[in-house]
Amino acid sequence: MASVEDIVFSAAINILSAIMFLILFAVLRLQPFNDRVYFPKWYLKGIRNSPTHAGNVIKKFVNLDCRTYLRFLNWMPAALRMPEPELIDHAGLDSAVYIRIYSLGLKIFAPITLLAFGVLVPVNLTSGTLESSKDLTFSDIDKLSISNIELGSDRFWAHVVMAYVFTFWTFCVLYTEYKKITSMRLHFLASADRRPDQFTVLVRNVPPDPDESVSEHVEHFFSVNHHDHYLLHQVVYDANKLAKLVEQRKKIQNWFVYYENKYARYPNKRPTTKTGLFGLIGQTVDAIDYYNTEIEKLLAEEAAERERIVSDSNSIMPAAFVSFRSRWGAAVCAQTQQTSNPTLWLTDWAPEPRDVYWSNLSIPFVELTIRRLIMAVALFFLTFFFMIPIAFVQSLANIEAIEKVFPFMKDLIETDLVKSFVQGFLPGIALKIFLILLPTILMTMSKIEGYTSLSTLDRRSASKYYLFLLVNVFLGSLITGTAFQQLDSFVHQSANTVPVTVGMSIPMKATFFITYIMVDGWSGVAAEILRLKALIVFHLKDAFLVKTEKDREQAMDPGCLEFASSEPRLQLYFLLGFVYCAVTPIILPFLLMFFSLSYVVFRHQIINVYNQQYESSAAFWPDVIRRLIFGLIISQLLFMGLISTKHGSFSTILLVLPVLTIWFHIYCKNRFEPAFVKFPLQDAMVKDTLERATEPQLNLRSYLQDAYVHPVFRSDEAERQMALREEENNPLVPTRRTSNRDTPGNSRHHSEVCSECEF
Amino acid sequence: MASVEDIVFSAAINILSAIMFLILFAVLRLQPFNDRVYFPKWYLKGIRNSPTHAGNVIKKFVNLDCRTYLRFLNWMPAALRMPEPELIDHAGLDSAVYIRIYSLGLKIFAPITLLAFGVLVPVNLTSGTLESSKDLTFSDIDKLSISNIELGSDRFWAHVVMAYVFTFWTFCVLYTEYKKITSMRLHFLASADRRPDQFTVLVRNVPPDPDESVSEHVEHFFSVNHHDHYLLHQVVYDANKLAKLVEQRKKIQNWFVYYENKYARYPNKRPTTKTGLFGLIGQTVDAIDYYNTEIEKLLAEEAAERERIVSDSNSIMPAAFVSFRSRWGAAVCAQTQQTSNPTLWLTDWAPEPRDVYWSNLSIPFVELTIRRLIMAVALFFLTFFFMIPIAFVQSLANIEAIEKVFPFMKDLIETDLVKSFVQGFLPGIALKIFLILLPTILMTMSKIEGYTSLSTLDRRSASKYYLFLLVNVFLGSLITGTAFQQLDSFVHQSANTVPVTVGMSIPMKATFFITYIMVDGWSGVAAEILRLKALIVFHLKDAFLVKTEKDREQAMDPGCLEFASSEPRLQLYFLLGFVYCAVTPIILPFLLMFFSLSYVVFRHQIINVYNQQYESSAAFWPDVIRRLIFGLIISQLLFMGLISTKHGSFSTILLVLPVLTIWFHIYCKNRFEPAFVKFPLQDAMVKDTLERATEPQLNLRSYLQDAYVHPVFRSDEAERQMALREEENNPLVPTRRTSNRDTPGNSRHHSEVCSECEF
Repeated sequence: MASVEDIVFSAAINILSAIMFLILFAVLRLQPFNDRVYFPKWYLKGIRNSPTHAGNVIKKFVNLDCRTYLRFLNWMPAALRMPEPELIDHAGLDSAVYIRIYSLGLKIFAPITLLAFGVLVPVNLTSGTLESSKDLTFSDIDKLSISNIELGSDRFWAHVVMAYVFTFWTFCVLYTEYKKITSMRLHFLASADRRPDQFTVLVRNVPPDPDESVSEHVEHFFSVNHHDHYLLHQVVYDANKLAKLVEQRKKIQNWFVYYENKYARYPNKRPTTKTGLFGLIGQTVDAIDYYNTEIEKLLAEEAAERERIVSDSNSIMPAAFVSFRSRWGAAVCAQTQQTSNPTLWLTDWAPEPRDVYWSNLSIPFVELTIRRLIMAVALFFLTFFFMIPIAFVQSLANIEAIEKVFPFMKDLIETDLVKSFVQGFLPGIALKIFLILLPTILMTMSKIEGYTSLSTLDRRSASKYYLFLLVNVFLGSLITGTAFQQLDSFVHQSANTVPVTVGMSIPMKATFFITYIMVDGWSGVAAEILRLKALIVFHLKDAFLVKTEKDREQAMDPGCLEFASSEPRLQLYFLLGFVYCAVTPIILPFLLMFFSLSYVVFRHQIINVYNQQYESSAAFWPDVIRRLIFGLIISQLLFMGLISTKHGSFSTILLVLPVLTIWFHIYCKNRFEPAFVKFPLQDAMVKDTLERATEPQLNLRSYLQDAYVHPVFRSDEAERQMALREEENNPLVPTRRTSNRDTPGNSRHHSEVCSECEF
Repeated sequence: MASVEDIVFSAAINILSAIMFLILFAVLRLQPFNDRVYFPKWYLKGIRNSPTHAGNVIKKFVNLDCRTYLRFLNWMPAALRMPEPELIDHAGLDSAVYIRIYSLGLKIFAPITLLAFGVLVPVNLTSGTLESSKDLTFSDIDKLSISNIELGSDRFWAHVVMAYVFTFWTFCVLYTEYKKITSMRLHFLASADRRPDQFTVLVRNVPPDPDESVSEHVEHFFSVNHHDHYLLHQVVYDANKLAKLVEQRKKIQNWFVYYENKYARYPNKRPTTKTGLFGLIGQTVDAIDYYNTEIEKLLAEEAAERERIVSDSNSIMPAAFVSFRSRWGAAVCAQTQQTSNPTLWLTDWAPEPRDVYWSNLSIPFVELTIRRLIMAVALFFLTFFFMIPIAFVQSLANIEAIEKVFPFMKDLIETDLVKSFVQGFLPGIALKIFLILLPTILMTMSKIEGYTSLSTLDRRSASKYYLFLLVNVFLGSLITGTAFQQLDSFVHQSANTVPVTVGMSIPMKATFFITYIMVDGWSGVAAEILRLKALIVFHLKDAFLVKTEKDREQAMDPGCLEFASSEPRLQLYFLLGFVYCAVTPIILPFLLMFFSLSYVVFRHQIINVYNQQYESSAAFWPDVIRRLIFGLIISQLLFMGLISTKHGSFSTILLVLPVLTIWFHIYCKNRFEPAFVKFPLQDAMVKDTLERATEPQLNLRSYLQDAYVHPVFRSDEAERQMALREEENNPLVPTRRTSNRDTPGNSRHHSEVCSECEF
């Protein structure tokens, strides 16, 4: 077990590295040539422009004003200054609610920390069990933990009572937070401007009809069954192939621009390329001509494919976006069953146009259930058996194997440096690559499951990732052995010894998790704000591809909150807090530090950097609460297991906690979750009435006509024009899915936040 | 273990007792004076009249026609003759679907029996393990079971393959049956005549409004938010106290009639009664005068209470029945969320008027969740710890305790006969009384949970009863010890040894369950048709209370299918079939016998006897399927546990089965269950359009005006008139809840069924 010195040393290293990142960030962000990396959101909103208008050439790239460096931590108060309503306006409800998860961590754990240090630490510290037993190795950390209390002592009353107090406090905070966020969502939806998805329902599994086309069938069905409310519909084309072609053309266009730039810089030498793999092998040709003809070829192919899709009835999917005359009509259609066969004419709220995941719109019902079964089994194997293929790869990546396959590399490999690299690094790298790829794998699995919007895909992937982290990181650290070995031992243990086995190892692993919080939490968050990858990529693109201001804008990668991967990681910290708050309270201050730092950093990021792909109006919140409650229940069971080894009779007193927690969850679910799933008729009616009074002349049909057209069907020009038109009419409504610029938004108050970073 | 002779002996006894019941039934039912006990349904339908018109006085009471006795089993083909559509017409969909559960048992287990006897029995029989090992006691039954195969034999392949075949066959049958019953339900709903519940939605948790009464608030809310569709509403009065008064008065009226009859028979002596407890103690008074004044007193009280309810605004509950202009409007309102707070303005389909459980209509949301938590905990304790209070009662009911409390009874008790009675019978009687009361207890628990319709109450009670039977009868028979001891040992065993422990005892308990099927199944069903209790009660009432034909009609107790208690018992037989089909196939013929006999008996009962209290259109079917699937999974797990002790590696092959079963359940649930919960808009629109075309002059308002009035508010006279009016207008629509007569129905073809039993 680590001693206090070890912890202090580790803390020092991590604090130093975090501070280093922060200083580096503070310096880099003040350089004008990095401005687009650290403030892309303001560029996308059109409020900030490249600082090229300034006279001095050096000043364009390097900030020479020393005074600004003195205030290098000023971004922190600046990030905290923007009030929440404005933040929602500026970055959307998703982002604003997401950072509330960090403040939720503070709200839960700050009072718990005070209580734990006020009550539990003195109780633990004054009980000198560990000092009296000389044969045990122990550290000072353990003196603060529950391990310091002798078996059967009445002092455990303090821990049991505190477990109850902590649970009830968590209930209070979760309840008020759920209530608050529900009302924020309802307010956001109620005050939202007119958007196509308010009037539109996604209909799937339109049954085939021998006499009618899909379009006619949809039209007839809804004009009969919703005759007062139906307005129009848009069929969905299977444009996956076309989308691929467009993707390919854009890539080639980048190369074309690259070589044109090169030629412009060195006009005396026409650049050449090779036609083969990555331009490395094959015939040498003139690069500009070659890519030019390639682009033209692809454009022709695209046109042909476009033609085919529109004319071929097979490319129309049995799905449609059906729009209604009023929000009330859409709300009714989305919430009701249409026909007696519940697998046909499935209606659901249409996602925002930019949130639609187009490829999944046409999966039939039976296939969907089979896909989900297969993915559930796959997830089980991925979670518990992922070590098997990795161990196989690792066994291949040893020196003997490499020498066998590539005999000519024998001499190279046998050198000491390379040998130690291969032996020490290669086995680890397979695991590392797997862990980096994991979110992508999980996202692919969710896509196979057939969800139709990006927001749902994110939420489903997050659930999968949470399971993986829980089993492999949390339980995997508490118990030695691979996940499969754990599973095996759990199955062979009795139901009440599992919490005991795991619970007993909790106090012993406290120092490990403290280190984990510092390395993964503190340093990770500090690295997040530095955006090293985006910085490098932007400058590479800027150097080779950018010709115009518009290109530069496209070269910016503002990124977004990766809900699918960051939220499950965040849940792990909550889990650690719940598990350790009554056992080893010393872990809590480290957690509080993590939550505060993350809160400030992510608030800064969503204000200045991130540009969300879609806006789901905090639809992910019930998932967050569900995982928090799940973590709470796990912590209660483990604490019960731990206490049962210390003072058996107390563990039955704790049995009430998980029952209460499950009940609390059911109550909250019934009370609040419908607000995240359904849209109440009263609110729809209020908005409809209001709109009819204020805009009696509104032509809804022309407004909704092209809202749900597959993005590849919009030529760039048409798209731009439409966006312009929309922004004029309706400044807060973004309808394009591939939007690289966000809505211009309400920018009156932004100057105050922005002013600090101006120079 | 019981030998074959024991089984044959037990079978002989049970077959004899069953045949005795059937013969007794055949004789009793042919006696005219029992006619109303065995054919009440036809009286209620008004098709059959008391055979009093025949001349001979003796013939009025005893059937002297010997030929009819010869055909004493003729009721069986008669019961089977009525075709299903007519049966649905005659007895309702609930009953028709209920007896399909028995035929489902035949459909599942008849082919399984053939296969098991064709494949498994030869495999088991030719493997002579039990004969070769001399030290084991075994019976001939065991030779047919899996116990006869030596450990690790390849013959277990046959059982594993058969387990798969049985499972897939069950899937096929369940799927087609679910599909069939879904279409039956949809057809039934689509062809149903106009009923108030098609237009009506039950709204609960109407929020209080300081300026408006509940009635005004409801009116305003729905005329705003459903302005094209809202028609009218009826508020719900808290008439529980009034209902109690009416109940009390009816009881006293019975006594009044009893004494009047007595006086009419012996006019020279006015009957007297005592005013105290049960007329046993207190002052002696003239009975007729006494009850007459009592009735008048209660009538006055009733009138006052009626007055108070109507005038006092506190007696109006925050709930209402809201009716719409069209079925479409009601379907929309029932399926959507009304306001942003999902705990207010809760809308749901109104139950049939006679299905409403009035007392539960006003429970607020928070109280509801707390009640359900408490009941869940109570059910847990009831299931696992019910033996504790019973053991306590039993400990009180021993001889020493009785002598201590009633010393004067010492001499009496010490006599041998009484002593042996007390010692042998009293401890058992406490358990027996508990088991008889159990369905009532569970129903009370469901009522406390706050469900608002009788059909839901029945379904919830059935779930609870199934849990109890599963734990205490099925598992309790497999494992010795009380349910709590089982729970304790399960918690202390590892997750994979639980199925092993239980699974291993399966083959050993086969003979016990065969006996159980014969005693509880065969004899139980045969006793059901005899209706001994109804027979006695009817003749008692007939002798003392009946004055007019109408009284005699009320004295009939046709009873009904007790879904809450009979369905869970039935599930137990399915569970036994699933568990034993691959282990001890010899149990299957006994099961088949049970299913066939029950099918015939219950078909006879629903045709001739039972009168359902409500019609839920087979809303219980998803519950039946869920429990069947649950039983299937249990059987698969136990079989896995059993096989793992015989041939370890085979148990992993069986692991796929529960996963597939769960998936099958999810698939069926998604595919079919919505048809039992929601009402599709298309069907509503079709019916609306049809009605508008055929009855353009229909006054829906007057039709719905009084549909949902609390039954106590209807004076008997008004009720009768209304029923008459309704029957004239609309011959298939019963709207009264306390209906003692069912709908007259379509009676053209009934004569053929009825003719057989006419004399």
